[in-house]
Amino acid sequence: MPLQFNEFYHENTGLTIGLKKLLFSEQSDYQLVEVYETDTWGHLMTIDGMVMLSEKDEFVYHEMVAHPVMFAHPNPEKVLIIGGGDGGTAREVLKHSSVKHVDMVEIDEAVVRASEQFFPGIGAWDDKRLKVLFEDGIAFVKAAKAEYDVVIIDGSDPVGPAEGLFEKDFFQFCFDALKEDGVLSAQTESPWVQEYHKSIKKVFKALQEVFTETEMYLGFIPLYPAGMWSFAFASKGVQVQSDEVLERVEKGLTEFSDSLKYYNKEVHQGAFALPGFVKEIIQ
Amino acid sequence: MPLQFNEFYHENTGLTIGLKKLLFSEQSDYQLVEVYETDTWGHLMTIDGMVMLSEKDEFVYHEMVAHPVMFAHPNPEKVLIIGGGDGGTAREVLKHSSVKHVDMVEIDEAVVRASEQFFPGIGAWDDKRLKVLFEDGIAFVKAAKAEYDVVIIDGSDPVGPAEGLFEKDFFQFCFDALKEDGVLSAQTESPWVQEYHKSIKKVFKALQEVFTETEMYLGFIPLYPAGMWSFAFASKGVQVQSDEVLERVEKGLTEFSDSLKYYNKEVHQGAFALPGFVKEIIQ
Repeated sequence: MPLQFNEFYHENTGLTIGLKKLLFSEQSDYQLVEVYETDTWGHLMTIDGMVMLSEKDEFVYHEMVAHPVMFAHPNPEKVLIIGGGDGGTAREVLKHSSVKHVDMVEIDEAVVRASEQFFPGIGAWDDKRLKVLFEDGIAFVKAAKAEYDVVIIDGSDPVGPAEGLFEKDFFQFCFDALKEDGVLSAQTESPWVQEYHKSIKKVFKALQEVFTETEMYLGFIPLYPAGMWSFAFASKGVQVQSDEVLERVEKGLTEFSDSLKYYNKEVHQGAFALPGFVKEIIQ
Repeated sequence: MPLQFNEFYHENTGLTIGLKKLLFSEQSDYQLVEVYETDTWGHLMTIDGMVMLSEKDEFVYHEMVAHPVMFAHPNPEKVLIIGGGDGGTAREVLKHSSVKHVDMVEIDEAVVRASEQFFPGIGAWDDKRLKVLFEDGIAFVKAAKAEYDVVIIDGSDPVGPAEGLFEKDFFQFCFDALKEDGVLSAQTESPWVQEYHKSIKKVFKALQEVFTETEMYLGFIPLYPAGMWSFAFASKGVQVQSDEVLERVEKGLTEFSDSLKYYNKEVHQGAFALPGFVKEIIQ
């Protein structure tokens, strides 16, 4: 019998990943964190049986959750990451030389510990601009007022400890935590999975009620359900596809485009092109 | 033990689909054609153990292989489909009112028979403009000279009977079968799968040598390996993203956009935005 990990998004349908061995397994106060060595994707982290990232595909999620929103801000200096315990989002954010300080608020220190040990290429833990706090993200953001240029919601799925990250109240706290020209991004599940549609609708409705501008965009993530993942962009006015932002992307990318494997200027534009069936979910 | 179909693209890694039952199984002269009832995706057709299409996701592949290339031509009247035995590509092509005649050359009549019986919503078999020929596509296209406005290569993977559809000689035959302003599209595998990179490189190198313009574009297909699929566009001069083509898309879609679930003008543009790691494969 081969050793396999299954994540099924409907009955017996989903992803199967061939495993070499289990490297880490810890039931933390919040969730079951595991790391496997796989046949194809390098090390793989799962939380409560759901794929979080692999070494070989993590660049998509992290580049896509970070760069569109970072370039949407004219001068992002102070950034808040809610979740993001594997460190990949912080790594991408810190590539922007304007950044002076990043607060990363991860509820579960076991995720950071597993990442430091088994995904050494991912984190930017030694960067002096990064402050890691093991706290409840919702309480943290609720206490912040007009402090941040960018908020990135990098939580897991809307079950377990990340459930509150999909609620309208939480988005209002994020809005209030942002300065006047603040921008936000969030991961918002797979539009291919019928069971997620309710969450996706709810998140976009809430964002539209709280923010001035809200857009969905997409990325190809092979180890997330059905290979298609959606993200939200929201702002107090900035349009993510404006000429001004696109100029900033072009100019800013000269600094670090060599380190990227997914995001580029065309992807910044193309990712916001939504297939008809996806538009329908959020309309 | 649940009944499941597996398509693994590397060792034990890939897609698992929950099945209700096997509906059709026939070893034809060319390949093993099977149809299953699934838990999530309606009926599913596989050929030699590889997913071809399901009722619920076939719209992506068929809309994307057909419409970008159809709109790239100013007045597509005569179209050749190589393969396409399930009928979905012909259905999309025939939505363009300029079309007077479609030759669909499918080597295996078992595929058409299975599709007629188990995917009744897919084909446009009764359309008088469609001529179905059960012949070898390579020999057929070799004999055609400056006859077609559009050629669509809708074959299966580059193993078994579709192997020749990935060779340079074949693309030269297609070039010669096209009129002066002719355009071509083809399916070209998943960039996420390392084992396909050699085929993808080879196809794009051959197309670049034969045609004036060659572009890759992408679609989210949940039941194809890793959920990302690539297509090729090639022409004797037309640029698929030109203002002229985009105007044609906008105008043309008023005729039948209600019937589409994936393709639209933004998708026509966005699908050609390639992530860095994909560009690298074909450069």
